[in-house]
Amino acid sequence: MEIKTYLNEQRELVEQALVGLMLSAAGPFARHIEAMRYSLFSGGKRLRPILCLAAAGAVSGSEDSRRAALPVACALECIHTYSLIHDDLPAMDDDDLRRGKATNHTVYGEAAAILAGDGLLTYAFDLLSSASTSALSDHVRIRIIQIVARAAGSQGMVGGQALDMIYEGKEAGYEVLHTIHQSKTGALITASIEAGALAAAADEVQVTALRSYGEQVGLAFQIIDDLLDLESTIEELGKAVGKDVGARKLTFPALFGVETSRVMAQDAIVAALEALQDFDAKADPLRLLARYIVERKK
Amino acid sequence: MEIKTYLNEQRELVEQALVGLMLSAAGPFARHIEAMRYSLFSGGKRLRPILCLAAAGAVSGSEDSRRAALPVACALECIHTYSLIHDDLPAMDDDDLRRGKATNHTVYGEAAAILAGDGLLTYAFDLLSSASTSALSDHVRIRIIQIVARAAGSQGMVGGQALDMIYEGKEAGYEVLHTIHQSKTGALITASIEAGALAAAADEVQVTALRSYGEQVGLAFQIIDDLLDLESTIEELGKAVGKDVGARKLTFPALFGVETSRVMAQDAIVAALEALQDFDAKADPLRLLARYIVERKK
Repeated sequence: MEIKTYLNEQRELVEQALVGLMLSAAGPFARHIEAMRYSLFSGGKRLRPILCLAAAGAVSGSEDSRRAALPVACALECIHTYSLIHDDLPAMDDDDLRRGKATNHTVYGEAAAILAGDGLLTYAFDLLSSASTSALSDHVRIRIIQIVARAAGSQGMVGGQALDMIYEGKEAGYEVLHTIHQSKTGALITASIEAGALAAAADEVQVTALRSYGEQVGLAFQIIDDLLDLESTIEELGKAVGKDVGARKLTFPALFGVETSRVMAQDAIVAALEALQDFDAKADPLRLLARYIVERKK
Repeated sequence: MEIKTYLNEQRELVEQALVGLMLSAAGPFARHIEAMRYSLFSGGKRLRPILCLAAAGAVSGSEDSRRAALPVACALECIHTYSLIHDDLPAMDDDDLRRGKATNHTVYGEAAAILAGDGLLTYAFDLLSSASTSALSDHVRIRIIQIVARAAGSQGMVGGQALDMIYEGKEAGYEVLHTIHQSKTGALITASIEAGALAAAADEVQVTALRSYGEQVGLAFQIIDDLLDLESTIEELGKAVGKDVGARKLTFPALFGVETSRVMAQDAIVAALEALQDFDAKADPLRLLARYIVERKK
């Protein structure tokens, strides 16, 4: 299997599911929903939903499992998109460009962008609790909601962003860097994989192994993100580059240098692949994704 | 039963539950959680959680029902508090004062306030899905999560706030005013009552009646809110007054005049009480609350 073919295929699957499940921009709230849709459909990599589907696929190859995991995957993308909208706000990272397009607040204004983010976050829990995804038992659904809420919340993604803002321009060591990245990025990536596994009725041994895979992949993802910010051009990345240095953000290359950071990312991928050792060929997409994460250019 | 005694007693109950269930401001995310706690514990009326508990009590007097409804009540207060933090932001209503205290962003800064709101919203779904509230079945819990997500989301509270911002300073008729208020305030009040009823294992007939009560009480609440903004002093209200007129917001008194607005609120309360006609004395707190809502001074 070619990684590009696989990613395109999966991205298309997620795209279609999002189109089917997202609110349409009609009725009294049309303008608000349009702002949500603007960022949701702006050419994201769909990495979290793809990881979610790949984890479900690693556990079970059934069509039912995929159908069960799809709305979960979409909810994760809603949460990821909301976090980007809020992170880009003038009060936060103040970015004008995201995925090569104008950021939400530059198009719709700050108030509308805050609300678009709030709406997407809330809609994720609407999707996760929606009765239409009847392939999931209530018990599994509740467990997924809790995992996602914890990962996205104040001791996960939101807390990590808060910490990132607090430490901007300040000296700090590896422990702080690790906490920020683990919570800001790692937690939702790991939750995507864990939620996908649960949607496919994984047993506890499988969930533990996949969570470990998720943690390592999340770490590698963040190291590479830091390196890309340092080394890419705006055209390649589709957003402002070198911002971390400008804002004196705590990054892996700043703390360990470029070469050591690259080795750390590679080590994390080796550990991620080891975590998959008891899985058969159904986990090959997860193996491909792990390698893709360190080799990507944006 | 005296309304003041009842309210104080219930408020104390909610206060204690919130203290027990809220994240503590310790560990790496202490500053962020402190910002969440600042607004959550700033002397709110706790109206939504009290309505939730009263609805549960109207259905069942059992201790189990109250225990089941309490975390739901707390989740609703988290959502209400997040909405106030975001509404007060400079990009939104730009308020410095809330409940007689400095607003979140004036104390913690804009970025931290946005994240405190995001954290509270997410934590609400953590609470609603938390396994510790074992008094609720998974099925009821999922239904409550969906009701709350819908009411708080883009076709409810968030959508209403978006619409409110869009229509600021613009001419519009009753239909728009009704949509804004119904979504911005009414939806979460109604959801509080419906969720409380479900936590106490209400049947569909009871849920329908209580939803109708909630809709009328929500309407009355909003009319009175508009009147209070017009007529109160800052000392009484604990936040800036006359802001609606300044911002040329669409309000009931602006559209119907003070006297007619007052009559409309009274009519809504009569309808709310009628919706309770098949309930026994266990619904008396809901009856008291309906009257309190039109008589309150803040």
